[in-house]
Amino acid sequence: MDTQEQHDRGLELRRKLFGREAVEMRMNACGEFGKPLQHIINAYAYGDVWQRSALPLATKSLVMVGMMAAAGHANELRVHLKGAVKNGCSMDEIQEVLLLLTLYCGIPAANEAHRIAAEVFREEKLI
Amino acid sequence: MDTQEQHDRGLELRRKLFGREAVEMRMNACGEFGKPLQHIINAYAYGDVWQRSALPLATKSLVMVGMMAAAGHANELRVHLKGAVKNGCSMDEIQEVLLLLTLYCGIPAANEAHRIAAEVFREEKLI
Amino acid sequence: MDTQEQHDRGLELRRKLFGREAVEMRMNACGEFGKPLQHIINAYAYGDVWQRSALPLATKSLVMVGMMAAAGHANELRVHLKGAVKNGCSMDEIQEVLLLLTLYCGIPAANEAHRIAAEVFREEKLI
Amino acid sequence: MDTQEQHDRGLELRRKLFGREAVEMRMNACGEFGKPLQHIINAYAYGDVWQRSALPLATKSLVMVGMMAAAGHANELRVHLKGAVKNGCSMDEIQEVLLLLTLYCGIPAANEAHRIAAEVFREEKLI
Amino acid sequence: MDTQEQHDRGLELRRKLFGREAVEMRMNACGEFGKPLQHIINAYAYGDVWQRSALPLATKSLVMVGMMAAAGHANELRVHLKGAVKNGCSMDEIQEVLLLLTLYCGIPAANEAHRIAAEVFREEKLI
Amino acid sequence: MDTQEQHDRGLELRRKLFGREAVEMRMNACGEFGKPLQHIINAYAYGDVWQRSALPLATKSLVMVGMMAAAGHANELRVHLKGAVKNGCSMDEIQEVLLLLTLYCGIPAANEAHRIAAEVFREEKLI
Repeated sequence: MDTQEQHDRGLELRRKLFGREAVEMRMNACGEFGKPLQHIINAYAYGDVWQRSALPLATKSLVMVGMMAAAGHANELRVHLKGAVKNGCSMDEIQEVLLLLTLYCGIPAANEAHRIAAEVFREEKLI
Repeated sequence: MDTQEQHDRGLELRRKLFGREAVEMRMNACGEFGKPLQHIINAYAYGDVWQRSALPLATKSLVMVGMMAAAGHANELRVHLKGAVKNGCSMDEIQEVLLLLTLYCGIPAANEAHRIAAEVFREEKLI
Repeated sequence: MDTQEQHDRGLELRRKLFGREAVEMRMNACGEFGKPLQHIINAYAYGDVWQRSALPLATKSLVMVGMMAAAGHANELRVHLKGAVKNGCSMDEIQEVLLLLTLYCGIPAANEAHRIAAEVFREEKLI
Repeated sequence: MDTQEQHDRGLELRRKLFGREAVEMRMNACGEFGKPLQHIINAYAYGDVWQRSALPLATKSLVMVGMMAAAGHANELRVHLKGAVKNGCSMDEIQEVLLLLTLYCGIPAANEAHRIAAEVFREEKLI
Repeated sequence: MDTQEQHDRGLELRRKLFGREAVEMRMNACGEFGKPLQHIINAYAYGDVWQRSALPLATKSLVMVGMMAAAGHANELRVHLKGAVKNGCSMDEIQEVLLLLTLYCGIPAANEAHRIAAEVFREEKLI
Repeated sequence: MDTQEQHDRGLELRRKLFGREAVEMRMNACGEFGKPLQHIINAYAYGDVWQRSALPLATKSLVMVGMMAAAGHANELRVHLKGAVKNGCSMDEIQEVLLLLTLYCGIPAANEAHRIAAEVFREEKLI
């Protein structure tokens, strides 16, 4: 497949997952300098890996939440928590991921992740 | 609930997830010195957090695989890959988690995780 | 021991270590969503591990400062720096921990930890 | 060599790399408490390791950018991005380092690093 | 560009950087299960990011060595140390990267990296 | 102070902490290539930071154990566990550090650290 096609289907999925406006904002955040990174995100992440279909999107979102919290990537965790909510994950499901995180990555990582999740839930009017 | 009860139901679940023999081996690996850690694992991890029921065990296993691979914990990744297989996760599902890992945590983390997964699949006669 | 008892003695110690007000604030930060995490912190961390008596509280605080700084957990580092001061650790003792950190975890980790420690010392009117 | 000499030649190089004012600010940020750390930075980092001459300063800066981004040290990354610009590295060269980072340390690390780089380039009037 | 083309030119560069035999071995290490990861490595890493030309290959290798050592990826560090030697980096240049690592990521990371570098230099008959 | 003097008093302390033979082995592990790193370890770590006297050596050892376990540096953790035993730390004290680690850095880090500690205790004929 041509990488431009991959890019386009990736961008389409990305917009579906996070909303058109949020994606637009992130795509323009670094201007020209950020173009090649955005190409990688659109074509290789959302246009390739996220297109696979062994797992439902909601499960992928929960895995992403666990991975980003485990790796300590606060901003990306917030992005994928929003995605998880959009993909239909319940607060109880997300909580269960973050409680596994507590025992397996420690209390400080869990405190950060809970704080960010509570912010996202408030923004999404869930609490 | 009494922590001893929590410990016992935790140990029961742990044996179900990983097999009685594997758990026995890990519980005795550090002798007396390891007792309080094993209590934490049995009573607080498997007797509390893993008892929650918002997510099916297979989904928890996939999340654990993602978190352990993201955090670079090779031995624990192997344990939870075995658990994932026991919980009915397919190789395709595990592969999808590890491909998300590739893009979001980088190629070296993915190389390690693939290597360990392939070993586990061979031990479990899946490949 | 019942986990509720463990929780209560843990909460008592936690308040003694960090002050009632600070603990109240942290316990309510994530509302209902944060309850199970707070249970883990009170019952399993402060109600179990922190109850052990081989090390004086001041030594535990210094170890916590070293571990949180090494793991790059800025918020938790601040919490345990406050705890260290409350537990009677001197600025010279804390400085020695942070200088070991400098050589063994690198200058950037040390810069962050020094910045946070200086803020805590100012808040505690030590400098 | 006397460590005071090492300190002085280190401070000189550090000022050349980052500007006198920026160095002054960082040296005073933690007052007395920060003195031994500043000695380590001046005498051991800039007075010893940075004095070596197998690599041109611009290459060292690019390596520092890669290392700090890989280790997730945002503040130090900013410092060495400024240093890289001062040492004559082009935006294209820095971009190439950050694209390697994308594939080898993952998209979240790359997002952070691009965001900081774009800020630095704006401050330096390059974009 | 078609991703297959990208894959092919990537594989060509990868073989040039590390030798045909070493690449063959790594490409087959995980069999079918590893195919999509190998596609990412060939098409997106070596077929895209590594094709950029702002930096000479030797500089990219030094940056990779710094990033992999900073992130604690021992196996990948070994791969890129071999690549650095193949790309004409001298032991003195590599040493300078590892001494920056010592001060900025700490002595333990530096010990590991030196150990691996010394092994690679012995295998390459440089020491 | 001259850095050679610093080096010499550092080497003396290092030998006292870990034994002459162990230090000799580590100093020669990387031959000529490792010389500048060994200078940093002797002169800057053991000749400067470890010479400070606000904390007893046993407390420094416990802090080092916590930091190295938190940062996931297995080899260095082993070195400082040996040092802790030599400095008179009891198994109960070390256990308490590793149980704090369990809650604050997670079960996988604790499993690794317990495994290494049990090996060290066996080598030192404590268990």
